[in-house]
Amino acid sequence: MPKLWDETVDAHRAAVREAIVRATAELVAEHGVASVKMAQIAERAGVGRATLYKYFPDVEAILGVWHEEHVAAHLGELRAARERGGSAGARLRAVLTGYAFIAFHRAGADAEIAALVHRGDSATEARGQLLTLLGDALAEAAADGAVRDDIAPVELAQYCLHALEAAGALASQAAVRRLVAVTLDGLRPA
Amino acid sequence: MPKLWDETVDAHRAAVREAIVRATAELVAEHGVASVKMAQIAERAGVGRATLYKYFPDVEAILGVWHEEHVAAHLGELRAARERGGSAGARLRAVLTGYAFIAFHRAGADAEIAALVHRGDSATEARGQLLTLLGDALAEAAADGAVRDDIAPVELAQYCLHALEAAGALASQAAVRRLVAVTLDGLRPA
Repeated sequence: MPKLWDETVDAHRAAVREAIVRATAELVAEHGVASVKMAQIAERAGVGRATLYKYFPDVEAILGVWHEEHVAAHLGELRAARERGGSAGARLRAVLTGYAFIAFHRAGADAEIAALVHRGDSATEARGQLLTLLGDALAEAAADGAVRDDIAPVELAQYCLHALEAAGALASQAAVRRLVAVTLDGLRPA
Repeated sequence: MPKLWDETVDAHRAAVREAIVRATAELVAEHGVASVKMAQIAERAGVGRATLYKYFPDVEAILGVWHEEHVAAHLGELRAARERGGSAGARLRAVLTGYAFIAFHRAGADAEIAALVHRGDSATEARGQLLTLLGDALAEAAADGAVRDDIAPVELAQYCLHALEAAGALASQAAVRRLVAVTLDGLRPA
């Protein structure tokens, strides 16, 4: 039964990996990014240091995986927002609002981690997926007359993503909603 | 004549400092940020290594000064744009266009340096000055009826700065002008 054996090993590896990532997330939340050491992570995750190093070379690599999982979850939320009912314009508004609140909540410790890991290929790929998702929603809304069609959706997507990142600098949820309204006003048909 | 002597020493120090910063800028343009070493900088600037280390502890510190000078020059350009003639709306448009083109040209090597030095207090201070400049221009345009007055200028300034940073991801000057137009459309009175 080699297949079953492989599946057991894979499940074990996934569980250890998840325990390591979760332990790192907890330690970062408690002590900040800079002070977390591999030895602490091993202890918190309940694995030996040798085992830990078989999975990850350093703290940054673990944070990279954690961040990827975060980003994937966020992309999932935005896709779900886009697929909920309503007109193309309403669905675009849902996606933009979702992204603005992600940017709002990302300020702080998450932003520190994002800056640390945002140099890799996976960050570039996630950014590409986000732009595609947004570009599709914009094209659909433009075809429906809810968004200007004098500028390519791919350019409007860059405008939206950057404008909504201002949410990270805002002080309240009400301010984030105002930012979404202003950003949408920039998209109105002439 | 202690005063005259002090002035001569200050002028000499400023000249050496400028030669070091200029040599570093040249080397970065030729070889990229990562490969520039203090020994090369000393040779190019025509100073001894011991002298170089009296002025700067490392390459990053020199790049920090270079970047500060860049940022100060950009702030100066934007202030000048704001002070040129025309209506409050026209002057706001001039400031936003100026900032969009700064963001457009910053992509590439400059962005690498900016990421390296953007952690310091001086970067935060420059950002604050930029937001104040933009907030003042927005408040003036709102008082003139050219910009919406249902949202505080300080929030609109964050929206503008972030939206215009999308210029760094755009491919042409025409696209940058379209981005400025969309951003301004978001500011229109209701």
